[in-house]
Amino acid sequence: MTDFAKTKAQFYLPEGVIYLDGNSLGPLPLAASAHVSDTMQDEWGEMLIRGWNKAGWMELSTGIGDRIGRLIGAETGHVMVGDTLSIKIYQALASALELNPGRKIILSDSGNFPTDLYMAQGLIRTLNQGHELRIVKPADIAENITEDVAVLMLTEVDYRTGRLHDMKSLTEIAHSKGVITVWDLAHTAGAIPVDLAGCGADFAAGCTYKYLNGGPGAPAFIYVAPRHIHNTRPALSGWLGHEAPFDFDLEYREGAGIERMRVGTPPVIALKSLETALDIWNMADIKDVRKKSIQLCDFFIKEIEVRCPALKLASPRDGNRRGSQVSFRFEHGFAAMQALIDRGVIGDFRAPDVMRFGVTPLYIDETDVRAAAAIIEDVITNSLWDAEKYKIRSKIT
Amino acid sequence: MTDFAKTKAQFYLPEGVIYLDGNSLGPLPLAASAHVSDTMQDEWGEMLIRGWNKAGWMELSTGIGDRIGRLIGAETGHVMVGDTLSIKIYQALASALELNPGRKIILSDSGNFPTDLYMAQGLIRTLNQGHELRIVKPADIAENITEDVAVLMLTEVDYRTGRLHDMKSLTEIAHSKGVITVWDLAHTAGAIPVDLAGCGADFAAGCTYKYLNGGPGAPAFIYVAPRHIHNTRPALSGWLGHEAPFDFDLEYREGAGIERMRVGTPPVIALKSLETALDIWNMADIKDVRKKSIQLCDFFIKEIEVRCPALKLASPRDGNRRGSQVSFRFEHGFAAMQALIDRGVIGDFRAPDVMRFGVTPLYIDETDVRAAAAIIEDVITNSLWDAEKYKIRSKIT
Repeated sequence: MTDFAKTKAQFYLPEGVIYLDGNSLGPLPLAASAHVSDTMQDEWGEMLIRGWNKAGWMELSTGIGDRIGRLIGAETGHVMVGDTLSIKIYQALASALELNPGRKIILSDSGNFPTDLYMAQGLIRTLNQGHELRIVKPADIAENITEDVAVLMLTEVDYRTGRLHDMKSLTEIAHSKGVITVWDLAHTAGAIPVDLAGCGADFAAGCTYKYLNGGPGAPAFIYVAPRHIHNTRPALSGWLGHEAPFDFDLEYREGAGIERMRVGTPPVIALKSLETALDIWNMADIKDVRKKSIQLCDFFIKEIEVRCPALKLASPRDGNRRGSQVSFRFEHGFAAMQALIDRGVIGDFRAPDVMRFGVTPLYIDETDVRAAAAIIEDVITNSLWDAEKYKIRSKIT
Repeated sequence: MTDFAKTKAQFYLPEGVIYLDGNSLGPLPLAASAHVSDTMQDEWGEMLIRGWNKAGWMELSTGIGDRIGRLIGAETGHVMVGDTLSIKIYQALASALELNPGRKIILSDSGNFPTDLYMAQGLIRTLNQGHELRIVKPADIAENITEDVAVLMLTEVDYRTGRLHDMKSLTEIAHSKGVITVWDLAHTAGAIPVDLAGCGADFAAGCTYKYLNGGPGAPAFIYVAPRHIHNTRPALSGWLGHEAPFDFDLEYREGAGIERMRVGTPPVIALKSLETALDIWNMADIKDVRKKSIQLCDFFIKEIEVRCPALKLASPRDGNRRGSQVSFRFEHGFAAMQALIDRGVIGDFRAPDVMRFGVTPLYIDETDVRAAAAIIEDVITNSLWDAEKYKIRSKIT
């Protein structure tokens, strides 16, 4: 059983702040700064170029990949870390389309995070082969998985509402129609125990600065199913994805396995920050995290609905159909979120009216949730809303 | 006049090491670790998600871009930092090809760094429109710039020999034939004062972990000439290249200017390390650096040729036709470089027989060069070479 008091003690959480935005950027692990500093001094500083071999920098991206892989049910040796989620989506999508050459449709939904859609649009334009991005409502995905679809590209957890897609069932439907799947795990990795291998997922990608707490702009990851990796020819064929980068051949030959999804030089310093963040998972079980997250989110919903009837739940009420966040719709959501941040309750706002709160048991507990709910009640009840600004009622008497 | 004793004092240089591999990975600036540590604690730790606005994280990639831009003669607001050089080359090349739609040839040379060629190969395969990568010898480039060439893609400084292409003249020839240029400045930025605007270069890209000392895997940069930026439609159309990323539209619309070449979330921690490294350029003039680099390289060549007749100069003898490195061919170069590294003289080796030495006046002076030459003489003279291993003669008597 995970000791959440112990995991909470691993993070720096500023005095007076209740941080409910770890779904956007996770907080600083206490050990991260020293680990990065040691890397800079003892490895970069002392070893200089020799760090690539002596300090194992070149193996960081696969080693960290495997640590993330354990949280998402990937087979060992099939996750590569690096670049950004946008780049990793491009790689996955380009490879997925190539595995389904007779079909032209990329199916996604309007709840997908825009960068996935944008990268698909850029890829379609680059391919110039008549592909089409078909965007439907999240609820209509299943019925739109038809035999003309090449790739189903979905983010498991909706970034606005936290609505969860059923990865297993949608992947099954996709496969029954000959469709390749690309799963974006941005709001999944470190929040929800998924089983990529068990679901038979084809490709997946995700970021590490949300529930994995890697730091602002931390590297992304990509998963390629073992049955596909040897048929996957990288569109982004960089030298560190080459079979023998230090032969400096003039012709690209893809690396043996997941190595082919590495592109350029690994971001060592950023990877070291991420490495520290992943150490916290040595004391946490993702299944416990999920269970506790559902409890905390349920409790938060109950508190808010009692205290603030003006806020309308935008997330699924059933915890099993929801990610690790709770969203409410409120007409003055933007102003209200500013007011809350001023009071130390940090969530965020997504247009037009969604107030998002990430609830992450690694460092958020019942006391935090109760305290946050009380502050939210106070702000919502005692403020006057005036378009984009707010005034605290008591101050203007 | 740049005070090189002062710039040298800005770096951590390990005791007993003469570092002649800054052309591969620059050394640690003394202030970098503290700056990164402060960022992690005072910005990520304290501000959390608010760092994107309060600490100006979102502006880092253009702000740092402009600082690099001043070293390479770019117009303000036309350099974007992020990703890796491989990704930036892909962006530049995809855009350049699109500006020359009637032509199918990408011309490059066998002295180009392989990742540029590999990324071109991946892009050609993705485009699937019959493009061809034509690779000729470096000396044959000018005569191969013909009217069927779409894009001339060259690395200004040859990574093996340090041979310098004439950017101004080749760009002129290219333009006279209707060819778009993509310049890789990996071994240029921070070593040689180029004038992108003055040369009329179309696209350029480079890395920041060599002569710019940003750290292992530090982010890359891309330049797009002002006359092209508004016709440049990104192939890698990520959300942070969108005109209004926080509108979360479903359709990509490219950002106003160079912003469109940003892809995903900027790597904040890595950018902060780079920022410190660039501070050193506040006390250095790139023209002085170039002048001093030529002096030091000339001196190094003279010393080695007197002391070690077995080593054959592989770099141009004329300093104006050479980057900031000196290479020698030596049959036992691999073993010799291992022996040198054991003795604290760190250069590197490139197959089949090239010993490379980076000479970078920011932290290398005459005393270092003389001391390195003496050690090289000792190692070359007093070792027995046995295939990939070496033995010191005195030890085996």
